Amino acid sequence: MAGLIGLDWGTSSLRAMRFEADGRLLETRQRPWGIRVLPEGGFAAALAHICEGWPTLPILASGMVGSRQGWSETGYVDTPAGPADLAAHCVTLDTHRDQRVRIVPGVRDAQGPDVMRGEEVQVFGALSAHPERRADTWLVLPGTHSKWVQVREGRIHRLHTLMTGELFALLRTHSILGAGVPDDAGADETCFLQGVETARASSASGAFSRLFAARANVLDGRMPAAGVPDFLSGLLIGEELRAAEAAGWTDSAPLLVGDPSLCERYRRAADVFGWRWSDTCTDAAARGLFLLAGLIGDAASVPPAQGAA
Amino acid sequence: MAGLIGLDWGTSSLRAMRFEADGRLLETRQRPWGIRVLPEGGFAAALAHICEGWPTLPILASGMVGSRQGWSETGYVDTPAGPADLAAHCVTLDTHRDQRVRIVPGVRDAQGPDVMRGEEVQVFGALSAHPERRADTWLVLPGTHSKWVQVREGRIHRLHTLMTGELFALLRTHSILGAGVPDDAGADETCFLQGVETARASSASGAFSRLFAARANVLDGRMPAAGVPDFLSGLLIGEELRAAEAAGWTDSAPLLVGDPSLCERYRRAADVFGWRWSDTCTDAAARGLFLLAGLIGDAASVPPAQGAA
Repeated sequence: MAGLIGLDWGTSSLRAMRFEADGRLLETRQRPWGIRVLPEGGFAAALAHICEGWPTLPILASGMVGSRQGWSETGYVDTPAGPADLAAHCVTLDTHRDQRVRIVPGVRDAQGPDVMRGEEVQVFGALSAHPERRADTWLVLPGTHSKWVQVREGRIHRLHTLMTGELFALLRTHSILGAGVPDDAGADETCFLQGVETARASSASGAFSRLFAARANVLDGRMPAAGVPDFLSGLLIGEELRAAEAAGWTDSAPLLVGDPSLCERYRRAADVFGWRWSDTCTDAAARGLFLLAGLIGDAASVPPAQGAA
Repeated sequence: MAGLIGLDWGTSSLRAMRFEADGRLLETRQRPWGIRVLPEGGFAAALAHICEGWPTLPILASGMVGSRQGWSETGYVDTPAGPADLAAHCVTLDTHRDQRVRIVPGVRDAQGPDVMRGEEVQVFGALSAHPERRADTWLVLPGTHSKWVQVREGRIHRLHTLMTGELFALLRTHSILGAGVPDDAGADETCFLQGVETARASSASGAFSRLFAARANVLDGRMPAAGVPDFLSGLLIGEELRAAEAAGWTDSAPLLVGDPSLCERYRRAADVFGWRWSDTCTDAAARGLFLLAGLIGDAASVPPAQGAA
């Protein structure tokens, strides 16, 4: 392999990573060109613009770009799903002739049912940085749709989606709870921890039965209106941890994967629950894309059916 | 009392009821003039329009009209709160000279903290129709903000707000789960019951950990996109029942108060949980306003402090 361009292409943004042949990351570029907010010229134009000045290299893309609303629909691989399964089911774009563009499939857990697109690449990237955890572990990928992923023998075994980030945005922007919050409300650690503690204390009834507290506390003079966003953030992240604990998803120290500042919020919330978290992996997408590209190179010489085994 | 005009004045609508001196309801009018969507001329104009052609009678109003964003801020009465406590703390408008207009205070439960405005009148109206339940019972008032109210010795003892209706509207209108749902999606009882059952089966982890199932089920071909709204409705109402059960709020047969079709949804959901519901009270606001107006007539001759005791 002469090198690689990796694309992490989601709903709201596009990130392009240029790798050397030895896996070294030379440059990363980011644009607000998610699959719902493309520039004029659509997918092909977005790709051409973000790669401007880079040499012609194989391209491997993951995320919502492979969904029905994406560039080319790429199916799901069922659990248990390992890197070789993903590599064997990548789809090569036939609409883009100058450069070979492949898209990674999503992963489907039929037991939920539950699905993901993009996070599966981060899972294997994170495991490549922590090979000692491949045998049996949980990974947590916070975000708009948080993913809790159980790995056994190096393959994704179970998968659970919690809509924490999307619920936070809905409540902050559109609900009565967000009304009256000043636009320049700064960070409020006390309210964040109060939200986490409220979720923890909600026990089996769950934090959504305590959601209105964000308003009642303000009316009662117990919380500043500017503290509502952090209270809600703490309440929803706390609810995610509470639900995971109640469902028995956790092991002793799940691996936290993703945006550093968001991971830091989860770490502070976990302290309230008395959890220990292991390392945080913040370059998981880059690692995962390069890993899969290597497997595709290998897999090209064997029939897909064997590659999927 | 020569008769009464009762106003149920909330955030999104205004309902006016004209009573005879003996309590008989002569006429009800409804307009979309909630406190956030007033006609030109504001509160006074809305009142004048909706009462057009009616005789000049004492007016008693309840609901968000007494909030900080309402016509005249009317405080909260703390729990335990009975009808006499509400009657003693009604506020008389000094801005409206032609007619005496009083506003009923809200109720505050300091233990939550939690608050309500308008539902307290419905609670006492419903109890006047079911006097055998005054000693010790639970009432459930479904809506944008559902209220679970514990009554002891004829007074509101505890109060819990669940934002079920608002969460449903947010998810239906603004979330990824509502995307792709046809505008003319009709009722789907199977999906509704599937949502209720999903909430019940979520056990201590709670139904919000299963919210993404609304999307995964559709992607997986297990549910039609048009069934998503009823699935969400069932999931959220089911979560309300699950949380109430986990918190021990219920007695054997809570009294259901409010809009008949919404109450019917709660009744069907409760069947899945094996609950028995007692009667549904659908004219609780009218009953409550007339009851309180009678008490204010009595209470006018005693000082407020004694009236509040």
